Amino acid sequence: MAAPESDRLRSPLVAEPAYSISISVAPSNEAKIDVHHHRPDAGEPKTTHPQPTLTVRSEEPPRQQQNQGTLARSDSTGERDRRFDQFKTLGGRLEQQLSSIRGGSQHPHPDPAAAGDDEASRDSEAETDDDSGKVPTADRYFAALEGPELETLRATEVPVLPEDETWPFLLRFPISAFGMCMGVSSQAMLYKTLELEPSTAFLRVSPGVNDVLWWVSAALMALVSFIYFLKVVFYFEAVRREFHHPIRVNFFFAPWIACLFLAKGLPEPVTSLHHAVWYQLMAPILFLDLKMYGQWMSGGEWRLSRVASPTTHLAVVGNFVGALLGARMGLREPALFFFAVGTVHYVVLFVTLYQRLPTNVPLPRDLHPVFFLFVATPSVASVAWARISGEFGLGARVAYYVALFLYASLVARVSFFFRGVSFSLAWWAYTFPVTSAAIATAVYASAMTSALTQALAVGLSAVASVTVAGVLATTVYRAFVRRDLFPNDVSIAIRRRPKAKFGKILKRIRTSSADLKELVVSRHSGGGSASETSSVSERATPMVYGRARAEP
Amino acid sequence: MAAPESDRLRSPLVAEPAYSISISVAPSNEAKIDVHHHRPDAGEPKTTHPQPTLTVRSEEPPRQQQNQGTLARSDSTGERDRRFDQFKTLGGRLEQQLSSIRGGSQHPHPDPAAAGDDEASRDSEAETDDDSGKVPTADRYFAALEGPELETLRATEVPVLPEDETWPFLLRFPISAFGMCMGVSSQAMLYKTLELEPSTAFLRVSPGVNDVLWWVSAALMALVSFIYFLKVVFYFEAVRREFHHPIRVNFFFAPWIACLFLAKGLPEPVTSLHHAVWYQLMAPILFLDLKMYGQWMSGGEWRLSRVASPTTHLAVVGNFVGALLGARMGLREPALFFFAVGTVHYVVLFVTLYQRLPTNVPLPRDLHPVFFLFVATPSVASVAWARISGEFGLGARVAYYVALFLYASLVARVSFFFRGVSFSLAWWAYTFPVTSAAIATAVYASAMTSALTQALAVGLSAVASVTVAGVLATTVYRAFVRRDLFPNDVSIAIRRRPKAKFGKILKRIRTSSADLKELVVSRHSGGGSASETSSVSERATPMVYGRARAEP
Amino acid sequence: MAAPESDRLRSPLVAEPAYSISISVAPSNEAKIDVHHHRPDAGEPKTTHPQPTLTVRSEEPPRQQQNQGTLARSDSTGERDRRFDQFKTLGGRLEQQLSSIRGGSQHPHPDPAAAGDDEASRDSEAETDDDSGKVPTADRYFAALEGPELETLRATEVPVLPEDETWPFLLRFPISAFGMCMGVSSQAMLYKTLELEPSTAFLRVSPGVNDVLWWVSAALMALVSFIYFLKVVFYFEAVRREFHHPIRVNFFFAPWIACLFLAKGLPEPVTSLHHAVWYQLMAPILFLDLKMYGQWMSGGEWRLSRVASPTTHLAVVGNFVGALLGARMGLREPALFFFAVGTVHYVVLFVTLYQRLPTNVPLPRDLHPVFFLFVATPSVASVAWARISGEFGLGARVAYYVALFLYASLVARVSFFFRGVSFSLAWWAYTFPVTSAAIATAVYASAMTSALTQALAVGLSAVASVTVAGVLATTVYRAFVRRDLFPNDVSIAIRRRPKAKFGKILKRIRTSSADLKELVVSRHSGGGSASETSSVSERATPMVYGRARAEP
Repeated sequence: MAAPESDRLRSPLVAEPAYSISISVAPSNEAKIDVHHHRPDAGEPKTTHPQPTLTVRSEEPPRQQQNQGTLARSDSTGERDRRFDQFKTLGGRLEQQLSSIRGGSQHPHPDPAAAGDDEASRDSEAETDDDSGKVPTADRYFAALEGPELETLRATEVPVLPEDETWPFLLRFPISAFGMCMGVSSQAMLYKTLELEPSTAFLRVSPGVNDVLWWVSAALMALVSFIYFLKVVFYFEAVRREFHHPIRVNFFFAPWIACLFLAKGLPEPVTSLHHAVWYQLMAPILFLDLKMYGQWMSGGEWRLSRVASPTTHLAVVGNFVGALLGARMGLREPALFFFAVGTVHYVVLFVTLYQRLPTNVPLPRDLHPVFFLFVATPSVASVAWARISGEFGLGARVAYYVALFLYASLVARVSFFFRGVSFSLAWWAYTFPVTSAAIATAVYASAMTSALTQALAVGLSAVASVTVAGVLATTVYRAFVRRDLFPNDVSIAIRRRPKAKFGKILKRIRTSSADLKELVVSRHSGGGSASETSSVSERATPMVYGRARAEP
Repeated sequence: MAAPESDRLRSPLVAEPAYSISISVAPSNEAKIDVHHHRPDAGEPKTTHPQPTLTVRSEEPPRQQQNQGTLARSDSTGERDRRFDQFKTLGGRLEQQLSSIRGGSQHPHPDPAAAGDDEASRDSEAETDDDSGKVPTADRYFAALEGPELETLRATEVPVLPEDETWPFLLRFPISAFGMCMGVSSQAMLYKTLELEPSTAFLRVSPGVNDVLWWVSAALMALVSFIYFLKVVFYFEAVRREFHHPIRVNFFFAPWIACLFLAKGLPEPVTSLHHAVWYQLMAPILFLDLKMYGQWMSGGEWRLSRVASPTTHLAVVGNFVGALLGARMGLREPALFFFAVGTVHYVVLFVTLYQRLPTNVPLPRDLHPVFFLFVATPSVASVAWARISGEFGLGARVAYYVALFLYASLVARVSFFFRGVSFSLAWWAYTFPVTSAAIATAVYASAMTSALTQALAVGLSAVASVTVAGVLATTVYRAFVRRDLFPNDVSIAIRRRPKAKFGKILKRIRTSSADLKELVVSRHSGGGSASETSSVSERATPMVYGRARAEP
Repeated sequence: MAAPESDRLRSPLVAEPAYSISISVAPSNEAKIDVHHHRPDAGEPKTTHPQPTLTVRSEEPPRQQQNQGTLARSDSTGERDRRFDQFKTLGGRLEQQLSSIRGGSQHPHPDPAAAGDDEASRDSEAETDDDSGKVPTADRYFAALEGPELETLRATEVPVLPEDETWPFLLRFPISAFGMCMGVSSQAMLYKTLELEPSTAFLRVSPGVNDVLWWVSAALMALVSFIYFLKVVFYFEAVRREFHHPIRVNFFFAPWIACLFLAKGLPEPVTSLHHAVWYQLMAPILFLDLKMYGQWMSGGEWRLSRVASPTTHLAVVGNFVGALLGARMGLREPALFFFAVGTVHYVVLFVTLYQRLPTNVPLPRDLHPVFFLFVATPSVASVAWARISGEFGLGARVAYYVALFLYASLVARVSFFFRGVSFSLAWWAYTFPVTSAAIATAVYASAMTSALTQALAVGLSAVASVTVAGVLATTVYRAFVRRDLFPNDVSIAIRRRPKAKFGKILKRIRTSSADLKELVVSRHSGGGSASETSSVSERATPMVYGRARAEP
């Protein structure tokens, strides 16, 4: 039987609470709810009567203690850690079969400790939870995660994998690692452009820079691809969960975009590339296009008005990169096809992001590197259109000026930069737009040569190189000094159904006192300050409201 | 006085109810509300106390029995069925006057049976309901109807016309019948294109095919127009209700688009047509444009963020069809005018549809033929722009590639096709996009001739012909074998004010126990599984919420 | 102690109330709530029982009387009215210091009357309210104001400045006064165009008209700028509040647009202007662009899906006006830059306005002059593109036809015009689009000369001149006859935190009877007529709902 415990819940939104609600759960499982009013004049909060004092009787002992027990036990389990088996492709079952053949036992869980361990990770409520073949819904991702990349777990959530120890490396290796390939290979592209464009010929960039960067990029690409390939083979469930993550899914475009960058940054002229290479690279992008845009159009939980975020630019920019490369290789019509597809969906995405619908993923208020993706698409589109139409004409210049304005718009807010923003591998993907803008400026400067445009080209190239160098330094520092480059990837470890720590108790209380909640909501919005009211009106959007209710 | 009746209401959304609410209405018209909790462990539901047990006193006897009596009587009424008179233009009153003159009686209802019958269809609450000059609001259409075409009545609704017998033919003849004309005449256009375009000249399509199809289309157009003209004359109220139906209103563009198709598919060169024909066909389209786009802009219940659905494409595509024909006839500036108007509103519509705002009409999850309208507009716009600009240039090709991608996007989801989708006349309108895409491909192939493009043109033409043939076969089967091509058109027979079967009782109960409902809602969303939560969050959108409340 | 008072509150939305709620506050501070049902059949409203009769005990005496007392006293205060000091830049504090130095007293409030007066304007709740350096949030503006220009105070609001007397002239002089400059200088531009365009050369407009109008415009501009400059100096707080007003902020583009009009309407050829003039005029527009579009993108309370209104066109059209002038002066690339920025944000704004998201500022149902801003942007964009691309090509004509269609769309609804719309200075800004359309038509007619286009040019010019003359006459009448051209500008005088008249009492009652409110809401939406239901569904949008709750 649980010891008597008393929790005082306070609404986290109310900075200076006008009242507080205390919920006491007695050993007899009776819950008592009291509403205390805080008077600014009075020192002590005093209980105002008549308030509804609800008494709730629970017939089951709280599960809390039991969970703690098994969690404690899980560290002492012997032999092999089976908690990650649920994400393993064949490994888990295969190894089990092997061991059972070896040991001659048919029992899938040979030792009681492991059995108990398994039970610990799945309590009675979550029993049908992690059955194979099912991933969490988009709503669950939104409900369980937070942050601009939906990368941190909300306080009320319990992940399916242990939070307090380091997971196997492959489970911690996210798809966003391909951002590194994008970042480095875009630098190779930049130095090739600086070397070849007439506007920056005066810099006399050595071809060697491009050579070195390209081979580094190619090696990095090979390494990252190999590791992720291992993840696909051994932890397919984890890959599948990344593919269903509303933000992370956009990074599945990254490997192909990075390959396109590599092809474009090739130290030789791209016309020497065989056309089949382009078609092979564009096939997966077309497949992902059909898949993602189809999901937007057909609605449901993946509809654009919900999942749109700056990261979604990655799902659009691939078309333009492909169009750019195709046009340079002489494949004008297929390039125009991808350009058309990209343009249409870019317009839809751009309008959606600018409107900032209340149902969207909440974006960070402070400037986050993710915002720089806004610059990527018009930059690349500008050069792509110039290559397709054969000149840096009005259309290409309109796109270029849009990119320039968005760049200026972000720089103007740079005072907010890096304020409390935590580093992640995804930053690499967020920095390639800066390089793209530098490349577009160099191409533009060749068409409109003047001291101003040339200075702009050189300046933006310098900014791009410095940015990538900075991110590289951070990455190296994190990887080799702090050794936390690959933290536990909690965003793939959320439960299919919510399981909160105080879930049971809270649910029981809510059952009997729904009107208390109504009271809290109406009271809160009634007397709040202006900024609080704002946050309420945002929280009160139906989608978020639904989420909030679905949480515990 | 009604006999004591006891109804146990269960929330239809809760698959495994955690509780149930029983409402007992005593003979003294007192209602008693009890909340029973279902424990999964306990066999019997047991009432949890303290729960609010509300007692409601009603002063009027429930009307239920009386309604049933009159409904039973309505089948035995003599002479003439007057229940459709309310939709008649002059007929109803004229005939009444004639009969009263003939019979020498000034009483409008000469026999008590008819009077009782009339009363049955209008109870005291709905008395001011169907007064002439008023149609249901857009909200009522959304509240009372469901399905992708808003064509079926919700379970809780009672139509103003009898559901259980066949209505007069004219009342069952919808505006969407003009879809047939669109489908057949687009085929005439297709075969004319295949005959004349250089890219498909190798097929040696006989001019006779175009001839036959054109005359069939013209005859069908004459027939459908004549019948619908009769409906306008005799049942103007029904036409007016179709015009206010959020989905059906788009079909009012169909007659004019079909006429444009006929003009374009004319066996002779279109340059021989008099310009006045074009102006006469575009005038109603311009009028409808001004009306519909004005409604979008000025907001209110017809604002685009509510009424947008794929069917709305019909309201945009007419501009492009007109622009295409006009450009071919040498009216380049007026054609450009309609092209501009169409483009601007198409962008708005396209973005809105792609975003899938939570306030939109819910679209079908499975692929429904209505989605193919997405292909129509860019196909037609592509050819129109090619004709206006004089070449199949970059702009026309961008539009064509967009159409091609959307086509591919729908074909990729074809596994969902026809799953539980019921046939309707509107399908004809949904199949003309396939023909438009084939025509655009033939024109594109003439500009970019290659084996691939020619094969594509032939393939898409074959698909279009097979599709139309299939829909034709289904139509003939429905019309002559199953004889259900024209079912009762319930979507025009909704009441201006909701009138549900248990409406009175429910309303009375709700009046006194609004918090009970709150309890139900909050309880439901609290404990649901993920998929339930999803449906809740969709239902909880303000618009739908407003609807749900307005229903009974 | 307050005398017993009884107020009968009625829901303002229910035209024919089915019931009413009476709240009686007894001298003992007990509130009694009764619900009266109105029966249409019964003559007298009769109270239905059993209804919840809630009794609320308040421990503080109502502040009502005290407020009235101080309001009455405020008129009799001596020497100098200090109530406007909070909006003064330095003046307030400076003068206070001066007077305290003169009087030798260090007390900031030398006389008790002024102290009491100050106290009156800030009761205990609002004490931290008007602290300098803080302006109301966007939510507060929406909550406290209503009307298409958010220019009138809601009934429940109490402004920070006295409503019943005339404020200092500078406080009543709004930024929208620059609309006058826009209107008059656009006329100067129009007559210059009519004089110079080949299509309207047959009118033989004398250059003198342009001369006179230009000098009048320049003089008006100088006057308005001088006055507003004084406001910036002496009442900076008021200017700041205008800058944060969601509608009014768009008018900060007006001075620069008016200057661009002056530059463009210069009696000499614009090529004679120094390029520096253009750059100096575009710098503030670029700054405002970065500021406003950045706010849209970064979301929060200023996100576009909330603040978008037709007035927002003013924030976009400046780019096109600048592009137009720049292209005429030979600055083609900078012009294209502003054209690109304008186009992209115009698309976003246009889609947002056409969708009429439920979270938008509610627009007036009747046609309001603000809608004519829809015509401005495509008109100006058309001419700008023609100047940039060097010919009135397809792109320019598409933009022109869009403007023409929107114009026709508004004229078609002209029957609603001026119905209950009150005049304001902002009308001047709303009438310049008509002039822009006339100019665009004259330029278009020069490219496509025909009797029809020339007639259209002359007709639209006449309409524009008549419109401006009408607005001028109204302005003169209001300024010199009725002397109410500059009413108290209440939209800058809202409180940072809501303070309603019965706020305290109502809040206390709501605290104890939240379900009563629920009852009211559900009852209203349940039994309302169709149009009422519509208004409910609009009010029930989360944003508005949040506002409604946040009000008292």
